[in-house]
Amino acid sequence: MSSKIAPAVRAAIEAVVGAGQAFSDPDKSRDYGHDEFSLKEIAREPDLVVRPGSAAEVAAVLRIANAHGIPVTPRGGATGLCGGCVPVRGGIVLSLERLDRVLDIDADNQMAVTEAGVRLSDFIRTVEEAGLYFPPHPGDESAMMGGLAATNAGGSRAVKYGTIRTYVRGLELVTPSGDVLELGGKLEKSSTGYNLMHLVIGSEGTLGVVTKLTLHLMARPGLMRSLVVPFEALEPALETVPLIMKRGIVPLAVEFLEVEPIVITEAHLGKTWPTKLGRTHLLIILDASTDEEMDRLSQDVAGICCERGAIDVFIADTPSKQDEVLTIRSRIYDAIKAGTVEILDIAVPRAEVAGHVRKVREVAARYDIWLPTFGHAADGNVHTHIMKARYENGAMTPVPESEWRPKTDPVRQELFRDCRARGGVISGEHGIGLVKKPYLPLTLDGRQIDLMRGIKKAFDPNGIMNPGKIFD
Amino acid sequence: MSSKIAPAVRAAIEAVVGAGQAFSDPDKSRDYGHDEFSLKEIAREPDLVVRPGSAAEVAAVLRIANAHGIPVTPRGGATGLCGGCVPVRGGIVLSLERLDRVLDIDADNQMAVTEAGVRLSDFIRTVEEAGLYFPPHPGDESAMMGGLAATNAGGSRAVKYGTIRTYVRGLELVTPSGDVLELGGKLEKSSTGYNLMHLVIGSEGTLGVVTKLTLHLMARPGLMRSLVVPFEALEPALETVPLIMKRGIVPLAVEFLEVEPIVITEAHLGKTWPTKLGRTHLLIILDASTDEEMDRLSQDVAGICCERGAIDVFIADTPSKQDEVLTIRSRIYDAIKAGTVEILDIAVPRAEVAGHVRKVREVAARYDIWLPTFGHAADGNVHTHIMKARYENGAMTPVPESEWRPKTDPVRQELFRDCRARGGVISGEHGIGLVKKPYLPLTLDGRQIDLMRGIKKAFDPNGIMNPGKIFD
Repeated sequence: MSSKIAPAVRAAIEAVVGAGQAFSDPDKSRDYGHDEFSLKEIAREPDLVVRPGSAAEVAAVLRIANAHGIPVTPRGGATGLCGGCVPVRGGIVLSLERLDRVLDIDADNQMAVTEAGVRLSDFIRTVEEAGLYFPPHPGDESAMMGGLAATNAGGSRAVKYGTIRTYVRGLELVTPSGDVLELGGKLEKSSTGYNLMHLVIGSEGTLGVVTKLTLHLMARPGLMRSLVVPFEALEPALETVPLIMKRGIVPLAVEFLEVEPIVITEAHLGKTWPTKLGRTHLLIILDASTDEEMDRLSQDVAGICCERGAIDVFIADTPSKQDEVLTIRSRIYDAIKAGTVEILDIAVPRAEVAGHVRKVREVAARYDIWLPTFGHAADGNVHTHIMKARYENGAMTPVPESEWRPKTDPVRQELFRDCRARGGVISGEHGIGLVKKPYLPLTLDGRQIDLMRGIKKAFDPNGIMNPGKIFD
Repeated sequence: MSSKIAPAVRAAIEAVVGAGQAFSDPDKSRDYGHDEFSLKEIAREPDLVVRPGSAAEVAAVLRIANAHGIPVTPRGGATGLCGGCVPVRGGIVLSLERLDRVLDIDADNQMAVTEAGVRLSDFIRTVEEAGLYFPPHPGDESAMMGGLAATNAGGSRAVKYGTIRTYVRGLELVTPSGDVLELGGKLEKSSTGYNLMHLVIGSEGTLGVVTKLTLHLMARPGLMRSLVVPFEALEPALETVPLIMKRGIVPLAVEFLEVEPIVITEAHLGKTWPTKLGRTHLLIILDASTDEEMDRLSQDVAGICCERGAIDVFIADTPSKQDEVLTIRSRIYDAIKAGTVEILDIAVPRAEVAGHVRKVREVAARYDIWLPTFGHAADGNVHTHIMKARYENGAMTPVPESEWRPKTDPVRQELFRDCRARGGVISGEHGIGLVKKPYLPLTLDGRQIDLMRGIKKAFDPNGIMNPGKIFD
């Protein structure tokens, strides 16, 4: 496959999208060669950045690329964490940024139709202005909607409301051969042939380009309240989570946190977490329709936590306290980013989280590496951060590369094997992309990967769509 | 492809499953040639019925069949309504009935692991005995769990709790080549390669044999209450449904019914529906955690219905009244079965249900055919019954075959085209099977069907799995 683009081919692409929307000037195209994965060594500049303005233009560009065997890497908000939008074999980066319109908020059907390049923050605002609610909340609101579908993004609210998959009802998909397919629609049910829509969700741009999404919306919830619950030790904190669920309470989110990253984030943001007691905290977010229901839920949750040895229960019930807590939680990633090599997103059964985190701590001690670990406890989705820094006196101290780099691969391998032994998978919400590709055979058997290759072949016989990712 | 089975091949299969578990005696095998589709003319006797006792036996049988090009039609409870388990090209019917164990109710992870041949009624009982809850409720409880996944079964509770797809977390799939794949697991999140599990859900046994399922469970809900709300006319009844949802109320179920089938079902069962007022009724089922919440919800729903012109609101709040109402609703199918040619299960956007049902009535009048229509209003899932009987004086009178038969195909076509024009699909929950196969191109474009064929080829290169179905 040639990744260089002949002048005549480039001219044909420019004729589709307009000259200004196809460029290869390194000063501009460099920004299109990476995502948010920490190590910039995986970046690669595309031969050409193309910014189509419609699905029809996407289709025309794909037809040209397909005819000439040019790799096409779709790109949304580039907030990914595993190199999924790095044009690893050169060719075209196809940016969806100009497909930035929310096309329809349909209150009667409780559905939204949005183009793929709309940012999550803009989508949420538009939905809320219409008096409706889009429950899932992956961490980075600058992500684009098409990318959320491409990775089946999750976030902290999946415990109650599910991942992005749960909300997608329709996708417009442009295939590598340039067909524009309407998969699904404003439909709550379908058993009409193989569900290509669900296959495309989570396929990381390797089967085609998502240009439009139809999404299920809900009515706005009434009330939200956050509880911060410190525990001395890991186990009782994590063992509390299944107990809450068993009592019939489904919180909006149940996050577990370690105190060190919180301390760094407080300093980073100039904000204050409700307590420094204990070493493991649960952040439990509840939603309810009425004050009575909220009080009952809060009391029940607090009671269960105290039975299990919680040191205290702090309630953030005003919007400003609530905001402070949620901001600190959502910005930990930024606060420790300078010291982060990689954020893992292992998913295990809920009841295995405590055991897996014990393993993380054992590995951290054995390799003498800082592995701060927190995440979505009730989803079994654990974010271990492989660090190139140490935690010392409330701050991060860099570690020399010669010390951290040799540890990263064995640490990943040990944690991925532990994940597998617990019936888990190596990615719960970020995807495999480029970075986790070597580890896919640790979590899936070869026959499953063979079937994925067969599906890929059916959609993309010339292998132009986001090559070099997942298993390719 | 040969559908006759050579004696040596049969002997090899008998060696796998035991002589008693492979038979071709017509008296016994006849029962394995049809499902619940009304017209028995689509039935076909298999050349051999095979009843394996484990996934390993399923794998061994498939390896033999694959080597000899023998069609294999998997069979669960055979409660399907579109001929999905009819062995239309002969060969083997592979009955999952001996895989009948619920293997694990895991309270900590709120997951169940069940074999594919467990009946829904037995599964629900086992889950409830463990103090947990499996929300989806497709109509026929004698369905088997594997079949529910094969068709992505829906039922009346999908509005609040989603279809079977929403609950499947893992599948054990035996491929035509005899590999036993573990897809997913006790996991709430996964973004680890293409989601083969979601592809298999709804694929109607054409990609492999589901032998085991891991299913998400919930804590048992507190309270349930049914409201029966008669309206004079269709439109105000159906237009009330989006209004309820917009106010933030998500009922467990919202069914719409016509009075004629209710009258027949009352007589059939010797039970009494709360009211005979009006021509269109809504049956709204609410669940809630507390009496206060239930009272508030009931009042809100009743208020909205009355604003929209409901004649009255009848509340079934005792278990016995509740049971009477739900039994009548769930047995309408049985009561009118003798006069039914086919039950359609068109799905349209929720706000299009009224328009579609108007179209049904127009078609019924034009063709002079009885098309009783009811279904899952909030899901947009409409069950129009094509009848070979008339409704006269509270009972069914047969119509001569020469009169009804020529009408069935044009009636289907008109309704499927109307469904498509409204952005719908021809099957919301029953699947395509054999009976709706000719109509698939009315709802999906050819390129989507081509991709499905490509996927089929990747899983089943020799085309042995449930051939002649969906698009084949």
